[in-house]
Amino acid sequence: MRRLLDSINGPQDIKHFSLAELEQLAEEIRELLIHTVAATGGHLAPNLGVVELTLALHKMFDSPKDKFIWDVGHQSYVHKILTGRRTNFSTLRTTNGISGFPKRAESEHDAFGAGHSSTSISSALGIALARDMSGEKYNVVAVIGDGSLTGGEAYEALNHTGHLGVNLTVILNDNEMSIAKNVGAISEYLAKMRTAPTYSKVKRDIDFLLRSIPAIGESVAKAVERLKGSLKYLLVPGILFEELGFTYFGPIDGHNIPLILDVLTKAKSINGPVIVHIVTHKGKGYLPAEINPDKFHGVGPFCVETGEIIKPSGAPPSYTQVFGNAIVKLAERNPNIVAITAAMPDGTGLRNFAIKFPKRFFDVGIAEQHAVTMAAGLATQGKRPVVSIYSTFIQRAYDQILHDVCLQNLPVIFMLDRAGIVGEDGATHHGVFDYSFLRHIPNIVIMAPKDENELQNMLYTATELNAPVAIRFPRGSGIGVELQSEYTKLEIGKAENLSSGKDVVLLAVGALVEPCQKAAALLADKGIAAGVVNTRFIKPLDGQLIRQIARDTGIIVTVEDNVITGGFGSAVLEYTNSQHLNWVKVLRLGLPDKFIEHGPRNYLLNKYGLNAQGIADSVETFLSQFGARK
Amino acid sequence: MRRLLDSINGPQDIKHFSLAELEQLAEEIRELLIHTVAATGGHLAPNLGVVELTLALHKMFDSPKDKFIWDVGHQSYVHKILTGRRTNFSTLRTTNGISGFPKRAESEHDAFGAGHSSTSISSALGIALARDMSGEKYNVVAVIGDGSLTGGEAYEALNHTGHLGVNLTVILNDNEMSIAKNVGAISEYLAKMRTAPTYSKVKRDIDFLLRSIPAIGESVAKAVERLKGSLKYLLVPGILFEELGFTYFGPIDGHNIPLILDVLTKAKSINGPVIVHIVTHKGKGYLPAEINPDKFHGVGPFCVETGEIIKPSGAPPSYTQVFGNAIVKLAERNPNIVAITAAMPDGTGLRNFAIKFPKRFFDVGIAEQHAVTMAAGLATQGKRPVVSIYSTFIQRAYDQILHDVCLQNLPVIFMLDRAGIVGEDGATHHGVFDYSFLRHIPNIVIMAPKDENELQNMLYTATELNAPVAIRFPRGSGIGVELQSEYTKLEIGKAENLSSGKDVVLLAVGALVEPCQKAAALLADKGIAAGVVNTRFIKPLDGQLIRQIARDTGIIVTVEDNVITGGFGSAVLEYTNSQHLNWVKVLRLGLPDKFIEHGPRNYLLNKYGLNAQGIADSVETFLSQFGARK
Ligand SMILES: [Mg+2]
Ligand SMILES: [Mg+2]
Repeated sequence: MRRLLDSINGPQDIKHFSLAELEQLAEEIRELLIHTVAATGGHLAPNLGVVELTLALHKMFDSPKDKFIWDVGHQSYVHKILTGRRTNFSTLRTTNGISGFPKRAESEHDAFGAGHSSTSISSALGIALARDMSGEKYNVVAVIGDGSLTGGEAYEALNHTGHLGVNLTVILNDNEMSIAKNVGAISEYLAKMRTAPTYSKVKRDIDFLLRSIPAIGESVAKAVERLKGSLKYLLVPGILFEELGFTYFGPIDGHNIPLILDVLTKAKSINGPVIVHIVTHKGKGYLPAEINPDKFHGVGPFCVETGEIIKPSGAPPSYTQVFGNAIVKLAERNPNIVAITAAMPDGTGLRNFAIKFPKRFFDVGIAEQHAVTMAAGLATQGKRPVVSIYSTFIQRAYDQILHDVCLQNLPVIFMLDRAGIVGEDGATHHGVFDYSFLRHIPNIVIMAPKDENELQNMLYTATELNAPVAIRFPRGSGIGVELQSEYTKLEIGKAENLSSGKDVVLLAVGALVEPCQKAAALLADKGIAAGVVNTRFIKPLDGQLIRQIARDTGIIVTVEDNVITGGFGSAVLEYTNSQHLNWVKVLRLGLPDKFIEHGPRNYLLNKYGLNAQGIADSVETFLSQFGARK
Repeated sequence: MRRLLDSINGPQDIKHFSLAELEQLAEEIRELLIHTVAATGGHLAPNLGVVELTLALHKMFDSPKDKFIWDVGHQSYVHKILTGRRTNFSTLRTTNGISGFPKRAESEHDAFGAGHSSTSISSALGIALARDMSGEKYNVVAVIGDGSLTGGEAYEALNHTGHLGVNLTVILNDNEMSIAKNVGAISEYLAKMRTAPTYSKVKRDIDFLLRSIPAIGESVAKAVERLKGSLKYLLVPGILFEELGFTYFGPIDGHNIPLILDVLTKAKSINGPVIVHIVTHKGKGYLPAEINPDKFHGVGPFCVETGEIIKPSGAPPSYTQVFGNAIVKLAERNPNIVAITAAMPDGTGLRNFAIKFPKRFFDVGIAEQHAVTMAAGLATQGKRPVVSIYSTFIQRAYDQILHDVCLQNLPVIFMLDRAGIVGEDGATHHGVFDYSFLRHIPNIVIMAPKDENELQNMLYTATELNAPVAIRFPRGSGIGVELQSEYTKLEIGKAENLSSGKDVVLLAVGALVEPCQKAAALLADKGIAAGVVNTRFIKPLDGQLIRQIARDTGIIVTVEDNVITGGFGSAVLEYTNSQHLNWVKVLRLGLPDKFIEHGPRNYLLNKYGLNAQGIADSVETFLSQFGARK
C-alpha cells in the first residue's frame, strides 16, 4: 500500500482525504510516533490518544488561520507531523531538533507555547477576544485533557469565557487520566457522564412516573427525587459546563473520525463558547502503552517489540527513588509525616508511600496552589506535610509558599524534584529559577544535597525542624554513594568543607558539588589548589565559613545550576557585601539570564560550562586575570 | 438599654443569648464597626454584611476548638470583636494594634491567616484532614465570598474536597459582589439560584406536563426540554456544587439569625462536605455603605454622619489616578491597547478606561493567573494588553508571567500598583517582593517612576516596546509635579542622573528618589557631597552609568522599598561583580529579610530607615566607616 504520510507536508494535504484514507493515515502516524519516541523518548501515550482528533481538527479547520492551542502541549506531536515537521520529526527533543512542546518560534501553526498545565483556555480566550476586536473571522480551538481541567486556572478561564460568551471551542480530551489516574470530583463527574443513562432508559422512568403519580399519595417531589439521579444528565448533559455558560456536546468516541467531524460541524455553528467532550484511550494502538499508559506518558527510549524501557544498566537509583524510600522510612517512625503530590505519585517517587500510608497520602490533581495551602492547613494542626512537586511546577504556587506557608512560618517541607537542567523537555520544564524565587522569602530554609545520602539526611533534618524548608534536587540518577540506613540531623546553616585550597575555593550547591570536586582535581593538575565546599544551605548561608574562606583565600567561586540572576551566587555577594568583605573576589558560575533550550542534560551542562572541565576552565581563566592576592 | 456588647469577652458570652439579645448585640456591633472604621479606616462594608452570620457561627460552634477560616479575611472584624479583641478593637490597623486580617499570632481564634483571596477551602481541608487523621472531633468552617469563588485555587479545593468527602462546612457568603460588581459565569449562576423558581411553580409546570403528555405527539423529550430551565434548580438546587460532591443548602437570608442557625444545624448533621449559600447585603445597617458598597469596601477615615471620606485637602492625585488618565489618553491614539483588571476596576484606576472603551476592557474576576495568560494570548494577536494588578496580588501569577509571557517574549505590560510598603493592610499586602521575584525572569523590562510624569512616560514607552514590561509604583499620592500633556519615550536601560556628588552617589528607585534627594540635601549640610540617580530601569540596569559612578566616586548606595534579598541592590552587586569593579563599595538600603508588620506607610518607611533622615543617617555612618577612597 502506498504510504500516505510521505505526501503530507502541511494540513492542506489531508483536506481531500476520504475517511478510509484518514484512517490509513492514522495508522501510519501511529507507526511514526511509536518508532520515533522509542528512539528519542518523549510523550508517547498522550499522542497515540489524539491521532484521530488531530486529523479531524486539521480536516475541519484551517491552521494557521484557525488557531489550535494544546494544553500542556505534550500531545502536539501529531499536530507537528501534520504541519510541516514530518521530515524532521526524528529530531524530536534532540539538540537543535524540534521541541516536544508547541513553540511559537518553531512554527506558525503553534499558536501558543505550552509546557505547564491548564493555560489553554485563558490563551484561547485572549486570542478570540483579539480576533473579535479586530473584526477578523477565524476559529480558536483549545484542546485540554481531563487532568488539566483540575488546575484552577482552567476554571478561572471557563468562568470568564462563559461570562463573555465569546466564540471559541474547547475540546475536552477525556482519557480518564492525567498522568496518573485522575483525582477530584470533576473527574468523577466526567465518569458519570460517560456512563449516563440513555434516552430510552430515562423515557422508561418517566413513563413510570406518569403512571404512578395519579395513583396514590406519593408526592411529585418524592417521585422526582427518585428520578433525579438519572434524569439530570439527560435533561442537561454536561450541566456543569452549561452552568458555566458553555454549550456542551458529548461525550463522544474520540477515535471515530466521522463522529468527531460531525460534532465539530455542529460546534462551529453555535454562537458562543462550546465544549466538546471526547473520550480517548491513552496509548491507543500500541498495546504496551494501552496496558500501561502511566509508564508511556513520558518515557525514555524503549524497545518497540517488547515495550521494555532501555535503561543504562547499573545506573544508581535516582534521587526520586531515594526520596521515595526515605520518606516511607521516616513516616514509619513519625506518624505526623504526610505526603502530598500534584498528580505525580510516580514521578515524585511517592507510590510506595501511597500504598503503605494511604490515609496520609494526598494526590490533589494538577493543583499546586491548593496543594501548598492545604499543606499549610495540615501544618497548623501538628502534621509535617511533605509537598513533592517538580521545581518548574511549584512556580505555580509561589504566592501560596510566601503568603500561606512562610508568612505564618509553618513547617511545610517542599521537595523540589527535577531542579536545575531537566534536559529534553526544555525551556518550559527546566527548574532553574527556584533559588531566585525562594531565596528572598523570609523564614524559609533552602537546602540542596550533594548526593543521595545527604538527600536522606536533609529530609530527616527538615522533618525535625519547625520552619518551612525547600529541598532541591536534580532529575535522574544519584551519584551512586552507598546509602546509610540511619539518618543524621544536619546543623542548620552549616556547610561542609570537603577540601581546602590555598588559591581558590569553590562554593558548590547540590548536584554541582561532584563536578566541582572533579574540577578541583583538574585544577590540581595545573598547579592550582582549589578547595571545595558543599554549601548544603542556600539559606541561611554559612557566614562563618565564607568569612574564613575570604580570609584564607580571598577568592570564591560559586557554582549553581540556577540562573545567576538572584541565585545562590547573589546570596554570596549579598553576604560578602553585608560583611564589607570588599576585597574578596567572587566568580559566579551558573546559567545565563535567558531561557535554556532543550537537549540532553549533560550536553546542556557542558554547553553552559557547568561540567567539571567547564568549571575548571572558568576558574583558571578567572585566576589568571584576577588571581593576585589582595 | 443595657449595652450587651460590654460583657462580651469571648464567644462563650453569647451562648446563652436569646434571639432578641443576639439581634440587639448585632446592632451594637454595627455601631462599634462604623465608629471604629470611621476613625481608623478599614474594610467596613464586608463586615457590616456578616454581623448576623458571625454571631450565628459563634453561637453554634465552639471556637477555638472548632475552626473558622475567613477567606481574604477582611470580613473578620466581628469575629475579632467576639473573641477577646473587643476592648482593643479601637487599635484596629494602627501601629502595634490589632490587624485588619486574621492572624495566628494574634489569637488562638484565628485558625488560619489570610489576606490574599481564595485560600480558605484549601486550608480548611488541610485542617479537617489533620483532625480526621488524629481521630479528633471538631468542626471546620470556611467562610468565602462569591468574589473569592472566582479564584482558581478555590475551585481546586472544592474539587479535591468533594472527591475526598471530608466533613467540613463552606459558607458561601454571597453579596453579589466581591469588591466591585462580580463578573464570571459563576456569579450569574448564583444569581439564577437566588431567583430560582419555587416548588409550587415547578409543581404547576409538572402538572401541565402530566396533562399534555398523553394527548398528542409532543415527545417527552420536547416537553422535558421546555421544563428544564425551571426544573433543574428545583431538582438539584446548587447542582454545580452538588456535582462537585458537596451537599448544598440555600440560598438563605444571611441576616436572619434563626434561619442561619437552623441551616447550620442541618449542615452539622450531614456526613461529608457541605456548602451553605447565604445571601447578605454588603454595608448592611449603614446607609452610605449600603448605597455605595464599593466605596466602603476598604475605606479611609470618614465622617459617620455624612459618609464622606476625610481626605487631606490639596493632596496631589494618586499614581493610580495618573495611570488611569494616561492609559485613556494613550488608548485614544493606539487602538491596540487593552486593559485587564482582576476585580479591581476602581482600585487600579481603570474605571474611566472601562467606560470609554468597554470592548477593550476586561475584568476577569479574582483570577490573576487567567488575567496574565489571557493577556499573553491577546499579545500574540498584536494587542498591547496592560494588566493592572497590585504588586502583592500579582504574586499569584508568577508562573504565568514567566512561562506564558516572558518565555514567549510577548509585549504584555504589568502595572504593579501598591508596590513597596502599603501601610495599614500589613504583611499580607505589602508589595515588597516584586523586584526579587521578577528580576531573574529573562526578557522582562522592569521600570519604576520617580514621579507621576515619569509614570506616564514609562507607560507610553512600554506601549511602544516589543517586550514584556513591569512598571512598579506605590500606593497613594504622587509627589505633586505638574503633569505634562505630551509623553516622552524613555531610552531603555538609561538612568537619569539628577545630581552629582564627589563623595557618594545614591542609586534610588521609584518612590525613594524623592527622599534620596532630600537626604542629599541633609548630607550637604554635613559637608557630604552625595549625588542622586533616578534609576528608572531595574532591568536592564544602566551599566555605563554605574561604571562611571564607580570610577568617579567609588561608593554607591542603593535605595529601594523592596526586600534587600534578591532586590535592586543585589542587581547592582551582580553588575559590579560581573564587571570586576571590586573596589566599589556598595551600601544596600531596603527592607530586611522578614515580613513587615502593619502601620502607616510613612511610619514604616521611617522605622526601616527609608525616609530622608534615615537614608542620610545610614549614608553618613557608612561613609564614616568605609568612606576612604580606594
Ligand atoms: Mg487526561
Ligand atoms: Mg462578595
